[in-house]
Amino acid sequence: MPLIKVHIRKGRSEAEVELLLDTMHEVMLSAFNVPERDRYQLVFEHEASHFRALDTGLGFERTSKFVLIEMVSRPRPRSEKLAFYQGLAARLESECGISPSDIMVSFVENADEDWSFGAGVAQFVTGEL
Amino acid sequence: MPLIKVHIRKGRSEAEVELLLDTMHEVMLSAFNVPERDRYQLVFEHEASHFRALDTGLGFERTSKFVLIEMVSRPRPRSEKLAFYQGLAARLESECGISPSDIMVSFVENADEDWSFGAGVAQFVTGEL
Amino acid sequence: MPLIKVHIRKGRSEAEVELLLDTMHEVMLSAFNVPERDRYQLVFEHEASHFRALDTGLGFERTSKFVLIEMVSRPRPRSEKLAFYQGLAARLESECGISPSDIMVSFVENADEDWSFGAGVAQFVTGEL
Repeated sequence: MPLIKVHIRKGRSEAEVELLLDTMHEVMLSAFNVPERDRYQLVFEHEASHFRALDTGLGFERTSKFVLIEMVSRPRPRSEKLAFYQGLAARLESECGISPSDIMVSFVENADEDWSFGAGVAQFVTGEL
Repeated sequence: MPLIKVHIRKGRSEAEVELLLDTMHEVMLSAFNVPERDRYQLVFEHEASHFRALDTGLGFERTSKFVLIEMVSRPRPRSEKLAFYQGLAARLESECGISPSDIMVSFVENADEDWSFGAGVAQFVTGEL
Repeated sequence: MPLIKVHIRKGRSEAEVELLLDTMHEVMLSAFNVPERDRYQLVFEHEASHFRALDTGLGFERTSKFVLIEMVSRPRPRSEKLAFYQGLAARLESECGISPSDIMVSFVENADEDWSFGAGVAQFVTGEL
């Protein structure tokens, strides 16, 4: 936790996808102060026709490198989310060559009892986490 | 925002998918009073075996044209959501030939700080949106 | 409702996927006391490179049978969610041969007005459900 769903256009190499996921994970660790092995990432590759993203009038030029990141997380302070957005923009640009204007994020929050990581129990409720 | 995830069965033409997305966008603009370029749509095509939808006993006959729409949005008034459901049913039937009994919608809400549209900032927090 | 999104690795047979969905549905019916035809399941198959899941340090050995289940539901009592986790672990092991250490669940909640099952109306608001 968080659970991260990454939407990209088809056409990236395996190595590019791996670097993207590794970099996101590092940013996440830094922004949210979670354990190193708290890594849950899903990647979805879409054709352009099936992945429409404009800019709500903000003036962003989206390219084929556009990345839309959905996060599911227990509640986090606003400051951590803002740090995450900033960190993503900086690191995905420097490490992966993705412009900050091509990075969009959307969070949804849930609660302790909403996670089971295995073994049929809710680890935030049992106190294991 | 909203972010719209559209689940359909495999088999529609490119033109059908495009018309579906365009029509949904028009209904969304009308129901939610958002900017014209507030368009974020993802389409997922599924095999029948991987896309099960019954009717909770409501008596709907689902067909291969069934559409399941997931919405992620900041909080919106109940009246807007109800108008959206009604508008979708009317317009997807008249424009796309999809029966209202084949249209399902599920909303999840989040908050201002849960969106970054680019540039590493949260535009509903900065006041840009 | 709930809406269930099931993430698995590529490589399962059609029969395995069907058994998995049928078993999940039975567990859901038992834990949540919903109608038999309250079945809304989507399956996503991922390459290993696109589906990363570690263990937050809990000591789980994830295998290629790992299943990540996203649930979208109206609010439910904690006790029902815990029963669902436990039931899934028991039944997916006995019926599908999936170890409890390979089963992860994440819930997100919404409200009555957030669901339209068809016909352009919100059935939890109209009183039909």
